[in-house]
Amino acid sequence: MELSRPGEPAYAGVAGTFSKLPLVLDPADLAGVDVAIVGAPIDEAVSARPGARFGPRAIRLADVSGGRSRPKDYGDVPVTPADAARSHEALKAGVAAICSAGVVPIVLGGDHSIAHPDVGAVAAHLRPAALGLIHFDAHADNAPSLWGVTRSHGTPMRLLVEEGSLPGERIVQIGLRGYWPDPEDFAWAREQGFRWHLMEEISERGMDAVMDDVLAVARTWDHTFLSFDIDVCDPAFAPGTGTPEPGGLTARDAIRAVRRIAAEVGLAGMEVVEVSPPYDQSDITALLAHRLVLEALSGLALRKLGREPRPERSRT
Amino acid sequence: MELSRPGEPAYAGVAGTFSKLPLVLDPADLAGVDVAIVGAPIDEAVSARPGARFGPRAIRLADVSGGRSRPKDYGDVPVTPADAARSHEALKAGVAAICSAGVVPIVLGGDHSIAHPDVGAVAAHLRPAALGLIHFDAHADNAPSLWGVTRSHGTPMRLLVEEGSLPGERIVQIGLRGYWPDPEDFAWAREQGFRWHLMEEISERGMDAVMDDVLAVARTWDHTFLSFDIDVCDPAFAPGTGTPEPGGLTARDAIRAVRRIAAEVGLAGMEVVEVSPPYDQSDITALLAHRLVLEALSGLALRKLGREPRPERSRT
Amino acid sequence: MELSRPGEPAYAGVAGTFSKLPLVLDPADLAGVDVAIVGAPIDEAVSARPGARFGPRAIRLADVSGGRSRPKDYGDVPVTPADAARSHEALKAGVAAICSAGVVPIVLGGDHSIAHPDVGAVAAHLRPAALGLIHFDAHADNAPSLWGVTRSHGTPMRLLVEEGSLPGERIVQIGLRGYWPDPEDFAWAREQGFRWHLMEEISERGMDAVMDDVLAVARTWDHTFLSFDIDVCDPAFAPGTGTPEPGGLTARDAIRAVRRIAAEVGLAGMEVVEVSPPYDQSDITALLAHRLVLEALSGLALRKLGREPRPERSRT
Amino acid sequence: MELSRPGEPAYAGVAGTFSKLPLVLDPADLAGVDVAIVGAPIDEAVSARPGARFGPRAIRLADVSGGRSRPKDYGDVPVTPADAARSHEALKAGVAAICSAGVVPIVLGGDHSIAHPDVGAVAAHLRPAALGLIHFDAHADNAPSLWGVTRSHGTPMRLLVEEGSLPGERIVQIGLRGYWPDPEDFAWAREQGFRWHLMEEISERGMDAVMDDVLAVARTWDHTFLSFDIDVCDPAFAPGTGTPEPGGLTARDAIRAVRRIAAEVGLAGMEVVEVSPPYDQSDITALLAHRLVLEALSGLALRKLGREPRPERSRT
Amino acid sequence: MELSRPGEPAYAGVAGTFSKLPLVLDPADLAGVDVAIVGAPIDEAVSARPGARFGPRAIRLADVSGGRSRPKDYGDVPVTPADAARSHEALKAGVAAICSAGVVPIVLGGDHSIAHPDVGAVAAHLRPAALGLIHFDAHADNAPSLWGVTRSHGTPMRLLVEEGSLPGERIVQIGLRGYWPDPEDFAWAREQGFRWHLMEEISERGMDAVMDDVLAVARTWDHTFLSFDIDVCDPAFAPGTGTPEPGGLTARDAIRAVRRIAAEVGLAGMEVVEVSPPYDQSDITALLAHRLVLEALSGLALRKLGREPRPERSRT
Amino acid sequence: MELSRPGEPAYAGVAGTFSKLPLVLDPADLAGVDVAIVGAPIDEAVSARPGARFGPRAIRLADVSGGRSRPKDYGDVPVTPADAARSHEALKAGVAAICSAGVVPIVLGGDHSIAHPDVGAVAAHLRPAALGLIHFDAHADNAPSLWGVTRSHGTPMRLLVEEGSLPGERIVQIGLRGYWPDPEDFAWAREQGFRWHLMEEISERGMDAVMDDVLAVARTWDHTFLSFDIDVCDPAFAPGTGTPEPGGLTARDAIRAVRRIAAEVGLAGMEVVEVSPPYDQSDITALLAHRLVLEALSGLALRKLGREPRPERSRT
Repeated sequence: MELSRPGEPAYAGVAGTFSKLPLVLDPADLAGVDVAIVGAPIDEAVSARPGARFGPRAIRLADVSGGRSRPKDYGDVPVTPADAARSHEALKAGVAAICSAGVVPIVLGGDHSIAHPDVGAVAAHLRPAALGLIHFDAHADNAPSLWGVTRSHGTPMRLLVEEGSLPGERIVQIGLRGYWPDPEDFAWAREQGFRWHLMEEISERGMDAVMDDVLAVARTWDHTFLSFDIDVCDPAFAPGTGTPEPGGLTARDAIRAVRRIAAEVGLAGMEVVEVSPPYDQSDITALLAHRLVLEALSGLALRKLGREPRPERSRT
Repeated sequence: MELSRPGEPAYAGVAGTFSKLPLVLDPADLAGVDVAIVGAPIDEAVSARPGARFGPRAIRLADVSGGRSRPKDYGDVPVTPADAARSHEALKAGVAAICSAGVVPIVLGGDHSIAHPDVGAVAAHLRPAALGLIHFDAHADNAPSLWGVTRSHGTPMRLLVEEGSLPGERIVQIGLRGYWPDPEDFAWAREQGFRWHLMEEISERGMDAVMDDVLAVARTWDHTFLSFDIDVCDPAFAPGTGTPEPGGLTARDAIRAVRRIAAEVGLAGMEVVEVSPPYDQSDITALLAHRLVLEALSGLALRKLGREPRPERSRT
Repeated sequence: MELSRPGEPAYAGVAGTFSKLPLVLDPADLAGVDVAIVGAPIDEAVSARPGARFGPRAIRLADVSGGRSRPKDYGDVPVTPADAARSHEALKAGVAAICSAGVVPIVLGGDHSIAHPDVGAVAAHLRPAALGLIHFDAHADNAPSLWGVTRSHGTPMRLLVEEGSLPGERIVQIGLRGYWPDPEDFAWAREQGFRWHLMEEISERGMDAVMDDVLAVARTWDHTFLSFDIDVCDPAFAPGTGTPEPGGLTARDAIRAVRRIAAEVGLAGMEVVEVSPPYDQSDITALLAHRLVLEALSGLALRKLGREPRPERSRT
Repeated sequence: MELSRPGEPAYAGVAGTFSKLPLVLDPADLAGVDVAIVGAPIDEAVSARPGARFGPRAIRLADVSGGRSRPKDYGDVPVTPADAARSHEALKAGVAAICSAGVVPIVLGGDHSIAHPDVGAVAAHLRPAALGLIHFDAHADNAPSLWGVTRSHGTPMRLLVEEGSLPGERIVQIGLRGYWPDPEDFAWAREQGFRWHLMEEISERGMDAVMDDVLAVARTWDHTFLSFDIDVCDPAFAPGTGTPEPGGLTARDAIRAVRRIAAEVGLAGMEVVEVSPPYDQSDITALLAHRLVLEALSGLALRKLGREPRPERSRT
Repeated sequence: MELSRPGEPAYAGVAGTFSKLPLVLDPADLAGVDVAIVGAPIDEAVSARPGARFGPRAIRLADVSGGRSRPKDYGDVPVTPADAARSHEALKAGVAAICSAGVVPIVLGGDHSIAHPDVGAVAAHLRPAALGLIHFDAHADNAPSLWGVTRSHGTPMRLLVEEGSLPGERIVQIGLRGYWPDPEDFAWAREQGFRWHLMEEISERGMDAVMDDVLAVARTWDHTFLSFDIDVCDPAFAPGTGTPEPGGLTARDAIRAVRRIAAEVGLAGMEVVEVSPPYDQSDITALLAHRLVLEALSGLALRKLGREPRPERSRT
Repeated sequence: MELSRPGEPAYAGVAGTFSKLPLVLDPADLAGVDVAIVGAPIDEAVSARPGARFGPRAIRLADVSGGRSRPKDYGDVPVTPADAARSHEALKAGVAAICSAGVVPIVLGGDHSIAHPDVGAVAAHLRPAALGLIHFDAHADNAPSLWGVTRSHGTPMRLLVEEGSLPGERIVQIGLRGYWPDPEDFAWAREQGFRWHLMEEISERGMDAVMDDVLAVARTWDHTFLSFDIDVCDPAFAPGTGTPEPGGLTARDAIRAVRRIAAEVGLAGMEVVEVSPPYDQSDITALLAHRLVLEALSGLALRKLGREPRPERSRT
């Protein structure tokens, strides 16, 4: 049994499937599957600390108690080290194949530049239906370029809007903070109709109230893609990331929000990005990312059953 | 002066007493003592990451500012590496000896399998008075077995109920979350009358409200044992543990809850378990565990004095 | 271009300026500058874990996204390893020179003993105007001595009051917790008119309410110095410190509080102390300290512009 | 494609095959295979620092450049957490199945207690042919019991001799040092005809001379099993182990010795044990263990080709 | 004083000069200077673990005792994150400018892809004089491409030969080992006249004898460039690198070899590459790289004085 | 049983005795004892990275296999944090008391400044007999002052000579390397008759030959003190130290040398200094220091028995 696609780099390929899910390497075998986990070990587009190429492996293995969900693991897309452009093409093709099989892709990044190919592939597949994006991040990722480089982890939201994959008014950003991006990029986002909820607003109104607003907007779309940059969480909860920014969400905030989204509006696709294992401590970032995927799977299952995303209590 | 019991393994035995408390190695010297700290460096029953055998030493030494309490440190019980059964017997005997001397045992674990011998010993000593258990944990620990193994850190609550040490209706669990245990184990717990407060409920109602309910129940018992699995705290606050689960309590939640329990209903015994130093970072998990013991001691002292568990404020 | 002052130890001196600010080594070049960052790599006065001598370098370099503020970096004061007294004199002279140039000093420590020389220098410069101190810390730092040593990181508040730099009634302490200092030191503080807000109070009333009280008091002073000991934050958010104490502020609490202080009452000086890189994890403590300085700079800028310390929201 | 055997713990099972070798889970598929890599994630028998259960996964993934050998990876044997006896039985059965298929097993441990079942299984398979053991270790592992426990990582050599799997005179130990075992155990070994080469001897005579002696002895046996405890290497080269002992072999010593053994006398089986990832640094121990397996594979291939274990030089 | 070139990324630019050397940012200020240290924080071309972009900063700061040499630090070349091609151009231009000023460049990498631009620039400057290359590395770095990518850290030697910067017969490689590159690449190297000394040869003949041969060859060239990939050292001595390979040189081997080269044949240029701080431990890799640069400077100084590279002994 | 002397800091005092030796806190109980281990947790005199105050605790606990020697552990001397002068006095008095009881002190440091009080105390006790010093170190430690500070870890050899405790001609230094101290300090040492063996000489002649010379000199003295600065070992073997210098001894070199000294010329006292746990990795530095003490104890025992320092071999 060959687990790896020929010629892949050492850090890519199957390194244990996500929570021991069955492995599928051929899109033809995706028939009847709901969701496919797919890895995108790409970090050539980072501007700060690289290392997210090790993210998919770390997230897949970050399972101390043994999960019980039943989707498939589709392995990693065939990346090319030191060539972000070629890797992005491979990711775009891989996600398109998953969508064509009628399966929801959950992409494990990789740096955030992968949002361009993967959200783009999902949008293309669904068109003309309206795809909206819920984007958790410390950073707006909507610059036109970083140090003159367009294919960057700071630009995917701009690229998606400019190529017509998504209009800005179907993008909601949650958790922005710090001293980035430049004012002109915020101005551009405002013109395009982006919505955002800064950490400051979350501190003042509470996470539940903000999420109520987010979900109300998402209900107006045909489909929702969830882009989760792990750096939206505070570095205390997610030290293993490339561009940490103090003052973020707690793990509890994040877990609850992801389950609500999956259960209340469903998912056409999801990505968890910027998990950078060389900077992680005792795997807590990978464990959190792993748990967020489980919450999405669990929310989707509850949604299918028509149940509320809320566990049963004991008698008092 | 011989500090160690003969023939103990390198990682067991006195490695500095808890906050430099006096050492007592002979139960005969416990006369007039209120509380005894006792170590149980046992982790042979874990199913995930071992390392909790180093917990007692780490907790004892995790003192950067110098404590001032006045109980005794009773050293470690005489464990047998690679033989959980024999170590459990030694722990049961050690706790029984402490109880017989009229002293409250505070056990530093060790993995959670030690709850079976230590809670059992306290229950046996107090019988026929009714002992109840307040159990902080990410996991319910009430499986009948793990991988076919009964003496496991996933089974102590089941063993205690089944052997009659405690009825299920005198067990309250706080902080459960994640995808464990199996539904049939939750069903069993419900039948036995367990109460539980999932993290989800704590997020919705707030920790203080939940603790009010817990304390109201505990007041109906004759005595309370506090079992504190450090993994009830979020991995950001307690990375040094064997089965971390994102989305847990903060240190502030935990500290406040432990002091309230000690001060408002008192303690017949306590254990702090699953501190695993190889996974700790800058000792923050050990420091938290150390502080939880100090809070219990302080709460017990306040209770003796009849004072409220609430510090004095400055003028405004 | 010589970046270093002659004869300084390897760990001191310019190791990249704060967020790539321009460097000024001569006080004569401070003309027209608002704020100067100055390093005080001194930890000879600690009683627990040393390492804060590496704090200024770590905080300056903890910049993953590139800041955009426009003050100056004044380098480190000329410290003498293994001689706290001489280093304190150098710090006092350096801060006095900055103040004389009409510039607000922001000091990167170093252990907390540096509050004695740096707050003292600012107080002396401003006298007879009334300087008050907002002091964030897990510890009160008002002992008369530690192990008989007066020049200690546990004594600066006592020294400042006793030498007349500040009356106790112009000191507000936030975040105290744990089992330190001795009752007699609290009694002394009460006599001197200190105000304090224990973590317990913050948990009960909420951080915003407490900060409203703090700011109301600060508005009665002519000038405010902000002393921020990073250990006021929970070890989950700030593991890289010498005397960690579980149960502290979150990064969000701290960031918000510092910006409010700078924007609402302004700053005559500031210090961030007790950042100890050998105990840090993935630089999260240094990143937080760096961000607190940015928040202060940003708050001061907003104050100059007469704007509220509150970011703009998107349309809903 | 199911990569895992049903019901295995999270840390066991396929987590990427060794250097991306094809995976074989069914012994029936071993036909025509020379060598099978098999994992034994068992550490319940350690007396010091546990963690070797994570060894097989770490060694398999410790491949930064991509290997090119062509054997198979047989996955992990079905272990039972917290039950060394049952896990040992599973290992013995797994190795027996590999041997029965005419395949050479290379076992990735796990603590050294696994030598008892795996060397025993190979000896039983080969009997009446004479199997000898080359044993690299800092410790003699020939105690009758540790703290009264017979199934221990300190006893396998004694158990193998006493059960008749191997006579002591067919055991050569290399690299012993430190203050273990007890004199009576050395005396027992001498009586049984063990040979040993202490580090002291290696320092005096040189590694090549000692290995010449070892190989001369091995050539008198029918078959050779190579048991390599990674702690024979100095902690500088192999920090990730449970019972480190300063003053050991270098990586160069070890690599050269393993290739010579495989090439000059061949291997009937091999194990690499006591790799404990929680104590590793930047994976250097796992990388070394991985390389030792590659050297064995490479030596076996050279032996098949009848070539010398010596690389070609460039012209001078 | 502006220490940084405008618009550079956070991790590039002056972060303390090498051993506190004076900083020169303008080539016009290089007059009268012997040697210039220049940083090349580029790692976009790695195929395994990225992180070498942090190498120049770490090497510069890795100075615990205070050096005393007197060259200049030229800062970092202006790199573009996520764009290796543009960064390589900047490096080539920077090194050319240094050479044009009559100064010897010592480049701190960065991944090994930088050898292409920096060795190329020195060769172009010296032509028609004959430049030879002494290349310390675990890997031959002479593949035509890696995963189809030409601009890679596995290809610079091929690129230099193919573009005519250096004939293969003026390249000597020391320390190669492991299972890379492919046989066809070794065959190509042999055709081109490369010389190499595998670790195996060094173990057999001793490092001094091998270096005697290397120096004999180098004396036949007009000029020598020294390319030092830190992974030539064993991971025990240099864990902080991207493609570690067990079984390498010791620090003593490396230090002695570098000083001999600088003193006995001189240097037209030097690079120290593949120092990757995220994988370093207690800075030992950066300290070693720093020391290798000091040895080169010291060797060059001895050569200028006509002295032997051998320190004075005390009387016996 | 009170294990601690009253009022000591948290990091000092009994934290497990060395290899579980009996504890003696009163010099009166030293009767009949050969050797006493005593801790000196002092690092206030370092000029680079502090942390050696945690050395005694780490060395004592660094015992994974259980030693079997029979001296006593005398606990730590009563140090004063942040006051090196007072701590030095306490150490001098403590060592004097041990010597007066006829016991050989083995001091666990602490930074190297402690050589001044402890070697001085032993010299004073033995006078007029001639004490000589064998000093292993990367650094000569014979500066008159560092940054103007006399009581420094860079000055003890100068202070000992100048106060008349030892003439320079009874000092032999082994392992010096790097770019320190200043030429004038080497000149001073030469005038005083110091002998030294640089690493360069050890590389050329071999460690055994150098040690033969050292022992020949030591045999001309009445008594020998062994001062072992752990940084004489390469950072690969001893990363946990304050002033690491690449290119040092291996652990095997060090272990063998210490045993030879103890066995061949005996010891009037010994110190192991500069073990700095915050910089250690997996305790390998503490384990090495612990082993060096065991080697000294073992060498002393062999000397008493009149046996050679050489273990028995098996038959060949």
